[in-house]
Amino acid sequence: MSEEFMRRAIALALENVRSGRGGPFAALVVKDGRVLVEGTNRVTSTNDPTAHAEIIAIREACRALGDFQLTSCDLYTTCEPCPMCLGAIYWARPARVFYAGTASDAAAAGFDDALIYNELRNPPAGRHIPMKQLLRDDALAIFSAWNAKADKIKY
Amino acid sequence: MSEEFMRRAIALALENVRSGRGGPFAALVVKDGRVLVEGTNRVTSTNDPTAHAEIIAIREACRALGDFQLTSCDLYTTCEPCPMCLGAIYWARPARVFYAGTASDAAAAGFDDALIYNELRNPPAGRHIPMKQLLRDDALAIFSAWNAKADKIKY
Repeated sequence: MSEEFMRRAIALALENVRSGRGGPFAALVVKDGRVLVEGTNRVTSTNDPTAHAEIIAIREACRALGDFQLTSCDLYTTCEPCPMCLGAIYWARPARVFYAGTASDAAAAGFDDALIYNELRNPPAGRHIPMKQLLRDDALAIFSAWNAKADKIKY
Repeated sequence: MSEEFMRRAIALALENVRSGRGGPFAALVVKDGRVLVEGTNRVTSTNDPTAHAEIIAIREACRALGDFQLTSCDLYTTCEPCPMCLGAIYWARPARVFYAGTASDAAAAGFDDALIYNELRNPPAGRHIPMKQLLRDDALAIFSAWNAKADKIKY
């Protein structure tokens, strides 16, 4: 069953390359043994650097479920997720993730997530994209307001 | 000038808490000394776990520019980015990032990105959300098709 879903994702990714709609990646969200949504990479065709297959599949599955969590869902992705997508997976909290290609397979095709993984380990001031802190004390008021809010919806 | 932009982002984040539209975070994209777009966290009000302020600001700025890169833009965010947003920043490639609160300030308000940062360091099989590899050999055909494609748009 798992292999059948992955074969479908691989077919979608191949078609995405052929059609030129985006990068060589696809993802599915499966719930209760059936495909809930399908996503393919759309970065270049939609001018959206966040439009990785997993992000699209997560967003559309949540919309379909009317929930900001993917409880009891499985995510199938044709490649080991990049740091952005892995972060999104942790925020969406599916039950399980299945992947086919590895990060090193993606790197060999020109998608080098290793830079981003390395940057995550560096402190903000030492990153390739300079990151500078400003007005921290002012920002603490935001968290105070959040902590004091009685009817907040946690996520 | 930088502080003025950050003060605007902080005001937006405070308003987002008051209105109940989402978490206590906001972000701006600035280009040529003016604000191009503003984004606030919309996770709970739009059922989208990826709707962090930075992701929204990046997507909308790219749409406004008609480009999948934020070349020569600065991103202002009220808090140190989570791994998902940091990944998105690296894919969008702005010139600089300014942030106000730290990851530990966010953790004290119940947003514990540390779990995700730790998980990124763990191999897929040892993560809290189980990750299993399937059909790697089949997936290699996708990257072969990508490598062979003459008119691909890299990103």
